[in-house]
Amino acid sequence: MPKLDLEAIPQSNRTGYPDPFDQAVAGRWWRRLARAGGLTEMGASHVVLKPGAWSSQRHWHDDEDELLIMLSGEAVLVEDEGRTILRPGDVCAWPKGATNGHHLINENREDCSFIAISAGDRNGTGAYSDIDMKFDGKGYYHKDGTPYPTKRMR
Amino acid sequence: MPKLDLEAIPQSNRTGYPDPFDQAVAGRWWRRLARAGGLTEMGASHVVLKPGAWSSQRHWHDDEDELLIMLSGEAVLVEDEGRTILRPGDVCAWPKGATNGHHLINENREDCSFIAISAGDRNGTGAYSDIDMKFDGKGYYHKDGTPYPTKRMR
Repeated sequence: MPKLDLEAIPQSNRTGYPDPFDQAVAGRWWRRLARAGGLTEMGASHVVLKPGAWSSQRHWHDDEDELLIMLSGEAVLVEDEGRTILRPGDVCAWPKGATNGHHLINENREDCSFIAISAGDRNGTGAYSDIDMKFDGKGYYHKDGTPYPTKRMR
Repeated sequence: MPKLDLEAIPQSNRTGYPDPFDQAVAGRWWRRLARAGGLTEMGASHVVLKPGAWSSQRHWHDDEDELLIMLSGEAVLVEDEGRTILRPGDVCAWPKGATNGHHLINENREDCSFIAISAGDRNGTGAYSDIDMKFDGKGYYHKDGTPYPTKRMR
C-alpha cells in the first residue's frame, strides 16, 4: 500500500549517540518510512520533537544530501549564521559536503513534526559543529579519531 | 540558505509528454527544489495541482524510488486496486520496479500541493499503465518501441 499507515509504523526514541550527547535527543520520536515503504534508494523518517527536544546534535554529512519538510508545529533551525523559524510547509535542503552544521530545536510547548529524507552514501562520514565528535558508517569518534563506545543506528 | 524560499523558485507547467497526453497535466505547476537547494543525490519538486489536474500519467519507475508528502488540499491517488484519498501529512512510497502504476488527481475545487522526491537512476526506464507509452532517460516510446516526437524534461 503506497499510502503509508504512519500510526502502524513503530516509533522509537533510541539513539546511537554516546552519553552525554544522547540527552538532547531523548524527546525525538522517529518512524522509519523508507523501510516501511520498501524504498532502498533513499532514507526517510517521520520525526516528532517533543518540547525541548533536538533533531540531532548540530551536524553535517560529507556524502549524503538531506531534505526536510515541516509538517506541524514550529521548530528553530540552528546553523553557523544563526536561527531560522520553521513552520508547516517549509522545506530545507542540505547538500552533502556543506560543512555548515544544522539541527532543529523545538522551543515551543507543543510537539512539532517533520519528514527527513536522505540520499547518497549512507556509510559516509560527517561531523558535529559544537562538540568533539565525528562519525562514519559504523560509529562515533573524537575529532582526534579516538572512538566513542557506541555504534551508529540505522 | 537551507530553508528554501519557495516563492523565489520559478514555477512551470511545462511537460515533455507528447500530445494528447500532455493535456491532463496542464494544471500541474512544479518547482524544482533539489536544484535550488544544491542537492545532487535526489530529485525533489514542489507541485501544485489546479482543480482537475493530474500529477502525471499513471506510471511507474523501474530504477527510481519515489516518495510523496501531501502539504495542502486533497487529491485522489489512483492505482491498480483503485482510489485512495490523500490529505495533508499523508505520505506515499513507491519502490522502484513495482509495476503498479500511480498518479494523483485533484478532483476538488481548491488547489492541492505536495512534495515529490525521487532517488536512484534518473536515466532509468518505466512505463504508463493506461496508455500506449513507456520512457527511458531521453524520451517517450510506444510500447512497441516506436518513438514519440517529444523529449523528457528535467
